[in-house]
Amino acid sequence: MRILGIDPGIAIVGFGFVDKEGSKVVPVQYGCIQTEAHTPEEERLLHVYEGMTQLIDKYKPDAVALEKLFFNRNVTTAMTVSQARGVMVLAAVQKGLPIAEYTPMQIKQAIVGYGKAEKKQVQEMTRMFLKLQKVPKPDDVADALAVAICHAHSYTLNSRINEVLRK
Amino acid sequence: MRILGIDPGIAIVGFGFVDKEGSKVVPVQYGCIQTEAHTPEEERLLHVYEGMTQLIDKYKPDAVALEKLFFNRNVTTAMTVSQARGVMVLAAVQKGLPIAEYTPMQIKQAIVGYGKAEKKQVQEMTRMFLKLQKVPKPDDVADALAVAICHAHSYTLNSRINEVLRK
Repeated sequence: MRILGIDPGIAIVGFGFVDKEGSKVVPVQYGCIQTEAHTPEEERLLHVYEGMTQLIDKYKPDAVALEKLFFNRNVTTAMTVSQARGVMVLAAVQKGLPIAEYTPMQIKQAIVGYGKAEKKQVQEMTRMFLKLQKVPKPDDVADALAVAICHAHSYTLNSRINEVLRK
Repeated sequence: MRILGIDPGIAIVGFGFVDKEGSKVVPVQYGCIQTEAHTPEEERLLHVYEGMTQLIDKYKPDAVALEKLFFNRNVTTAMTVSQARGVMVLAAVQKGLPIAEYTPMQIKQAIVGYGKAEKKQVQEMTRMFLKLQKVPKPDDVADALAVAICHAHSYTLNSRINEVLRK
Protein backbone atom coordinates (compact mmCIF):
# COMPACT_ATOMS: atom_id res chain seq x y z
CA MET A 1 0.00 0.00 0.00
CA ARG A 2 1.42 3.37 -1.06
CA ILE A 3 0.65 6.49 0.97
CA LEU A 4 1.17 10.12 -0.04
CA GLY A 5 1.74 12.35 2.99
CA ILE A 6 1.28 16.09 2.56
CA ASP A 7 2.20 19.08 4.69
CA PRO A 8 -0.07 21.74 3.13
CA GLY A 9 1.20 25.25 2.41
CA ILE A 10 1.27 27.84 -0.35
CA ALA A 11 4.98 28.79 -0.53
CA ILE A 12 6.15 25.23 0.22
CA VAL A 13 4.06 22.07 0.00
CA GLY A 14 5.94 19.13 1.51
CA PHE A 15 5.19 15.71 0.07
CA GLY A 16 6.36 12.19 0.90
CA PHE A 17 5.44 8.86 -0.68
CA VAL A 18 5.96 5.76 1.46
CA ASP A 19 5.20 2.09 0.88
CA LYS A 20 3.74 0.11 3.73
CA GLU A 21 5.16 -3.41 3.37
CA GLY A 22 3.86 -5.57 6.21
CA SER A 23 5.06 -3.86 9.37
CA LYS A 24 7.75 -1.88 7.49
CA VAL A 25 7.36 1.59 6.03
CA VAL A 26 9.71 2.29 3.12
CA PRO A 27 10.35 5.72 1.56
CA VAL A 28 9.64 5.98 -2.17
CA GLN A 29 10.03 9.63 -3.06
CA TYR A 30 9.84 12.92 -1.18
CA GLY A 31 10.37 16.63 -1.74
CA CYS A 32 8.35 19.79 -2.04
CA ILE A 33 6.38 21.89 -4.50
CA GLN A 34 7.40 25.51 -4.19
CA THR A 35 5.70 28.67 -5.43
CA GLU A 36 7.14 32.16 -5.71
CA ALA A 37 5.83 34.79 -3.30
CA HIS A 38 5.59 37.48 -5.97
CA THR A 39 3.52 35.56 -8.49
CA PRO A 40 -0.27 36.07 -8.57
CA GLU A 41 -2.25 33.91 -6.17
CA GLU A 42 -4.15 32.13 -8.96
CA GLU A 43 -0.89 31.04 -10.63
CA ARG A 44 0.43 29.71 -7.33
CA LEU A 45 -2.75 27.67 -6.86
CA LEU A 46 -2.50 26.34 -10.42
CA HIS A 47 1.15 25.40 -9.83
CA VAL A 48 0.31 23.53 -6.60
CA TYR A 49 -2.61 21.73 -8.26
CA GLU A 50 -0.62 20.71 -11.33
CA GLY A 51 2.36 19.64 -9.22
CA MET A 52 0.12 17.50 -7.04
CA THR A 53 -1.66 15.95 -10.04
CA GLN A 54 1.65 15.09 -11.71
CA LEU A 55 3.00 13.49 -8.53
CA ILE A 56 -0.14 11.38 -8.10
CA ASP A 57 0.01 10.30 -11.77
CA LYS A 58 3.68 9.37 -11.45
CA TYR A 59 3.78 7.61 -8.08
CA LYS A 60 0.19 6.30 -7.98
CA PRO A 61 -0.56 6.32 -4.23
CA ASP A 62 -3.48 4.33 -2.77
CA ALA A 63 -4.28 6.93 -0.13
CA VAL A 64 -3.50 10.52 0.83
CA ALA A 65 -2.83 11.76 4.37
CA LEU A 66 -2.72 15.46 5.24
CA GLU A 67 -1.53 17.30 8.29
CA LYS A 68 -4.50 19.20 9.72
CA LEU A 69 -4.17 22.97 9.54
CA PHE A 70 -4.30 24.98 12.74
CA PHE A 71 -4.45 28.74 12.94
CA ASN A 72 -5.24 30.60 16.10
CA ARG A 73 -4.67 34.17 15.08
CA ASN A 74 -3.74 35.00 11.54
CA VAL A 75 -6.95 34.61 9.52
CA THR A 76 -5.24 35.88 6.35
CA THR A 77 -2.62 33.13 6.48
CA ALA A 78 -5.32 30.58 7.32
CA MET A 79 -7.28 31.62 4.24
CA THR A 80 -4.26 31.58 1.92
CA VAL A 81 -3.12 28.12 3.01
CA SER A 82 -6.70 26.78 3.00
CA GLN A 83 -7.09 27.77 -0.64
CA ALA A 84 -3.99 25.74 -1.46
CA ARG A 85 -5.29 22.85 0.64
CA GLY A 86 -8.51 23.01 -1.38
CA VAL A 87 -6.73 22.43 -4.69
CA MET A 88 -4.61 19.62 -3.17
CA VAL A 89 -7.70 17.82 -1.88
CA LEU A 90 -9.29 18.34 -5.30
CA ALA A 91 -6.28 16.74 -7.05
CA ALA A 92 -6.62 13.68 -4.77
CA VAL A 93 -10.40 13.28 -4.98
CA GLN A 94 -10.31 13.62 -8.78
CA LYS A 95 -8.14 10.46 -8.80
CA GLY A 96 -10.60 8.72 -6.46
CA LEU A 97 -8.11 8.57 -3.58
CA PRO A 98 -9.29 8.28 0.04
CA ILE A 99 -8.16 11.25 2.13
CA ALA A 100 -7.24 11.09 5.80
CA GLU A 101 -6.28 13.96 8.07
CA TYR A 102 -4.25 13.97 11.28
CA THR A 103 -3.64 16.65 13.89
CA PRO A 104 -0.02 17.45 14.84
CA MET A 105 -0.72 15.74 18.16
CA GLN A 106 -1.89 12.53 16.49
CA ILE A 107 1.22 12.55 14.29
CA LYS A 108 3.54 13.03 17.28
CA GLN A 109 1.74 10.26 19.15
CA ALA A 110 2.11 7.89 16.19
CA ILE A 111 5.79 8.66 15.54
CA VAL A 112 7.26 9.30 19.00
CA GLY A 113 4.53 7.77 21.20
CA TYR A 114 3.99 11.10 22.94
CA GLY A 115 1.56 13.76 21.67
CA LYS A 116 3.59 16.68 22.96
CA ALA A 117 6.95 15.57 21.56
CA GLU A 118 9.39 18.17 20.23
CA LYS A 119 9.57 18.78 16.47
CA LYS A 120 13.22 17.60 16.44
CA GLN A 121 12.26 14.29 18.07
CA VAL A 122 9.55 13.69 15.46
CA GLN A 123 12.01 14.43 12.67
CA GLU A 124 14.68 12.16 14.10
CA MET A 125 12.21 9.28 14.60
CA THR A 126 10.91 9.82 11.05
CA ARG A 127 14.49 9.57 9.76
CA MET A 128 15.07 6.36 11.74
CA PHE A 129 11.76 4.76 10.69
CA LEU A 130 12.61 5.31 7.04
CA LYS A 131 16.32 4.45 7.46
CA LEU A 132 17.36 7.78 5.95
CA GLN A 133 20.88 9.12 6.47
CA LYS A 134 19.69 12.65 7.18
CA VAL A 135 16.49 14.40 8.19
CA PRO A 136 14.99 15.64 4.90
CA LYS A 137 14.97 19.40 4.43
CA PRO A 138 13.08 21.73 4.51
CA ASP A 139 10.98 20.82 7.57
CA ASP A 140 7.87 20.58 5.37
CA VAL A 141 9.29 17.45 3.71
CA ALA A 142 10.03 15.74 7.03
CA ASP A 143 6.52 16.71 8.23
CA ALA A 144 4.97 15.21 5.08
CA LEU A 145 6.83 11.93 5.63
CA ALA A 146 5.75 11.93 9.28
CA VAL A 147 2.05 12.20 8.38
CA ALA A 148 2.49 9.40 5.81
CA ILE A 149 4.03 7.13 8.50
CA CYS A 150 1.26 8.16 10.91
CA HIS A 151 -1.34 7.03 8.36
CA ALA A 152 0.52 3.74 7.78
CA HIS A 153 0.44 3.03 11.52
CA SER A 154 -3.20 4.07 11.96
CA TYR A 155 -4.13 1.93 9.01
CA THR A 156 -2.39 -1.10 10.56
CA LEU A 157 -4.03 -0.45 13.92
CA ASN A 158 -7.50 -0.07 12.40
CA SER A 159 -7.05 -3.25 10.36
CA ARG A 160 -6.07 -5.19 13.50
CA ILE A 161 -9.02 -3.78 15.45
CA ASN A 162 -11.34 -4.81 12.63
CA GLU A 163 -9.78 -8.31 12.58
CA VAL A 164 -10.33 -8.70 16.30
CA LEU A 165 -13.89 -7.40 16.04
CA ARG A 166 -14.66 -9.87 13.25
CA LYS A 167 -13.55 -12.86 15.36
CA MET B 1 -17.56 41.36 -22.86
CA ARG B 2 -19.00 38.65 -20.65
CA ILE B 3 -18.33 38.67 -16.90
CA LEU B 4 -18.87 35.86 -14.41
CA GLY B 5 -19.54 37.20 -10.92
CA ILE B 6 -19.10 34.82 -7.99
CA ASP B 7 -20.10 34.99 -4.35
CA PRO B 8 -17.84 32.26 -2.89
CA GLY B 9 -19.13 29.75 -0.37
CA ILE B 10 -19.16 26.03 0.32
CA ALA B 11 -22.89 25.31 0.94
CA ILE B 12 -24.04 27.86 -1.67
CA VAL B 13 -21.90 29.40 -4.41
CA GLY B 14 -23.79 32.23 -6.11
CA PHE B 15 -22.94 32.89 -9.75
CA GLY B 16 -24.09 35.45 -12.30
CA PHE B 17 -23.09 35.94 -15.92
CA VAL B 18 -23.64 39.41 -17.38
CA ASP B 19 -22.80 40.92 -20.76
CA LYS B 20 -21.40 44.39 -20.86
CA GLU B 21 -22.77 45.98 -24.06
CA GLY B 22 -21.55 49.55 -24.33
CA SER B 23 -22.83 51.27 -21.21
CA LYS B 24 -25.46 48.58 -20.60
CA VAL B 25 -25.08 45.49 -18.45
CA VAL B 26 -27.38 42.65 -19.48
CA PRO B 27 -28.03 39.46 -17.47
CA VAL B 28 -27.22 36.19 -19.24
CA GLN B 29 -27.64 33.46 -16.65
CA TYR B 30 -27.54 33.27 -12.88
CA GLY B 31 -28.10 30.79 -10.08
CA CYS B 32 -26.12 28.86 -7.52
CA ILE B 33 -24.11 25.69 -7.04
CA GLN B 34 -25.19 23.96 -3.86
CA THR B 35 -23.50 21.24 -1.82
CA GLU B 36 -24.98 19.10 0.93
CA ALA B 37 -23.75 19.73 4.47
CA HIS B 38 -23.50 16.04 5.30
CA THR B 39 -21.32 14.98 2.36
CA PRO B 40 -17.54 14.69 2.85
CA GLU B 41 -15.60 17.91 2.38
CA GLU B 42 -13.61 16.55 -0.58
CA GLU B 43 -16.81 15.68 -2.47
CA ARG B 44 -18.20 19.15 -1.86
CA LEU B 45 -15.01 20.69 -3.24
CA LEU B 46 -15.15 18.42 -6.28
CA HIS B 47 -18.80 19.38 -6.84
CA VAL B 48 -18.01 23.12 -6.66
CA TYR B 49 -15.03 22.73 -8.99
CA GLU B 50 -16.93 20.67 -11.55
CA GLY B 51 -19.95 22.98 -11.40
CA MET B 52 -17.73 26.00 -11.96
CA THR B 53 -15.86 24.34 -14.83
CA GLN B 54 -19.13 23.35 -16.54
CA LEU B 55 -20.53 26.87 -16.19
CA ILE B 56 -17.37 28.41 -17.67
CA ASP B 57 -17.42 25.91 -20.56
CA LYS B 58 -21.08 26.62 -21.26
CA TYR B 59 -21.24 30.43 -20.93
CA LYS B 60 -17.64 31.26 -21.90
CA PRO B 61 -16.97 34.40 -19.84
CA ASP B 62 -14.07 36.77 -20.65
CA ALA B 63 -13.36 37.57 -17.01
CA VAL B 64 -14.22 36.44 -13.50
CA ALA B 65 -14.98 38.74 -10.56
CA LEU B 66 -15.16 37.46 -6.97
CA GLU B 67 -16.44 39.03 -3.81
CA LYS B 68 -13.55 39.24 -1.37
CA LEU B 69 -13.90 37.05 1.70
CA PHE B 70 -13.87 38.66 5.12
CA PHE B 71 -13.78 36.80 8.39
CA ASN B 72 -13.08 38.46 11.67
CA ARG B 73 -13.65 35.67 14.12
CA ASN B 74 -14.52 32.23 12.91
CA VAL B 75 -11.27 30.78 11.55
CA THR B 76 -12.92 27.39 10.87
CA THR B 77 -15.51 28.96 8.56
CA ALA B 78 -12.81 31.08 6.93
CA MET B 79 -10.78 27.95 6.18
CA THR B 80 -13.74 25.98 4.83
CA VAL B 81 -14.86 28.76 2.48
CA SER B 82 -11.27 29.52 1.44
CA GLN B 83 -10.80 25.93 0.31
CA ALA B 84 -13.85 26.29 -1.91
CA ARG B 85 -12.57 29.64 -3.17
CA GLY B 86 -9.30 27.89 -4.06
CA VAL B 87 -11.00 25.40 -6.38
CA MET B 88 -13.12 28.18 -7.98
CA VAL B 89 -10.04 30.27 -8.71
CA LEU B 90 -8.38 27.13 -10.09
CA ALA B 91 -11.32 26.48 -12.45
CA ALA B 92 -11.00 30.05 -13.78
CA VAL B 93 -7.21 30.14 -14.14
CA GLN B 94 -7.21 26.76 -15.93
CA LYS B 95 -9.34 28.44 -18.62
CA GLY B 96 -6.92 31.38 -18.78
CA LEU B 97 -9.48 33.86 -17.41
CA PRO B 98 -8.39 37.05 -15.67
CA ILE B 99 -9.60 37.20 -12.07
CA ALA B 100 -10.61 40.37 -10.23
CA GLU B 101 -11.65 40.71 -6.64
CA TYR B 102 -13.75 43.37 -4.93
CA THR B 103 -14.46 44.11 -1.30
CA PRO B 104 -18.11 44.42 -0.18
CA MET B 105 -17.46 48.17 0.18
CA GLN B 106 -16.21 48.49 -3.40
CA ILE B 107 -19.27 46.60 -4.63
CA LYS B 108 -21.67 48.81 -2.67
CA GLN B 109 -19.87 51.90 -3.94
CA ALA B 110 -20.15 50.70 -7.54
CA ILE B 111 -23.83 49.70 -7.34
CA VAL B 112 -25.38 52.24 -4.95
CA GLY B 113 -22.68 54.93 -4.99
CA TYR B 114 -22.23 54.60 -1.23
CA GLY B 115 -19.80 52.14 0.38
CA LYS B 116 -21.89 51.61 3.48
CA ALA B 117 -25.21 50.99 1.71
CA GLU B 118 -27.64 48.43 3.12
CA LYS B 119 -27.75 44.95 1.60
CA LYS B 120 -31.38 45.51 0.52
CA GLN B 121 -30.41 48.68 -1.36
CA VAL B 122 -27.64 46.85 -3.21
CA GLN B 123 -30.04 44.05 -4.16
CA GLU B 124 -32.72 46.48 -5.36
CA MET B 125 -30.22 48.48 -7.44
CA THR B 126 -28.86 45.22 -8.89
CA ARG B 127 -32.40 44.22 -9.87
CA MET B 128 -32.99 47.61 -11.52
CA PHE B 129 -29.64 47.64 -13.36
CA LEU B 130 -30.41 44.26 -14.89
CA LYS B 131 -34.12 45.03 -15.46
CA LEU B 132 -35.16 41.93 -13.50
CA GLN B 133 -38.70 41.60 -12.18
CA LYS B 134 -37.59 40.32 -8.79
CA VAL B 135 -34.42 40.27 -6.71
CA PRO B 136 -32.85 36.84 -7.42
CA LYS B 137 -32.87 34.42 -4.50
CA PRO B 138 -31.01 33.27 -2.45
CA ASP B 139 -28.98 36.36 -1.52
CA ASP B 140 -25.82 34.67 -2.83
CA VAL B 141 -27.15 34.95 -6.39
CA ALA B 142 -27.95 38.64 -6.06
CA ASP B 143 -24.48 39.18 -4.53
CA ALA B 144 -22.84 37.37 -7.45
CA LEU B 145 -24.67 39.57 -9.97
CA ALA B 146 -23.67 42.66 -7.96
CA VAL B 147 -19.95 41.81 -8.14
CA ALA B 148 -20.31 41.14 -11.88
CA ILE B 149 -21.88 44.61 -12.38
CA CYS B 150 -19.16 46.11 -10.16
CA HIS B 151 -16.51 44.63 -12.43
CA ALA B 152 -18.31 45.88 -15.55
CA HIS B 153 -18.29 49.43 -14.13
CA SER B 154 -14.69 49.27 -12.93
CA TYR B 155 -13.67 47.95 -16.31
CA THR B 156 -15.39 50.86 -18.08
CA LEU B 157 -13.82 53.34 -15.70
CA ASN B 158 -10.35 51.87 -16.11
CA SER B 159 -10.70 51.83 -19.91
CA ARG B 160 -11.70 55.50 -19.91
CA ILE B 161 -8.81 56.43 -17.65
CA ASN B 162 -6.44 54.57 -19.96
CA GLU B 163 -7.94 56.35 -22.99
CA VAL B 164 -7.43 59.74 -21.35
CA LEU B 165 -3.89 58.83 -20.33
CA ARG B 166 -3.04 57.74 -23.88
CA LYS B 167 -4.15 61.13 -25.32
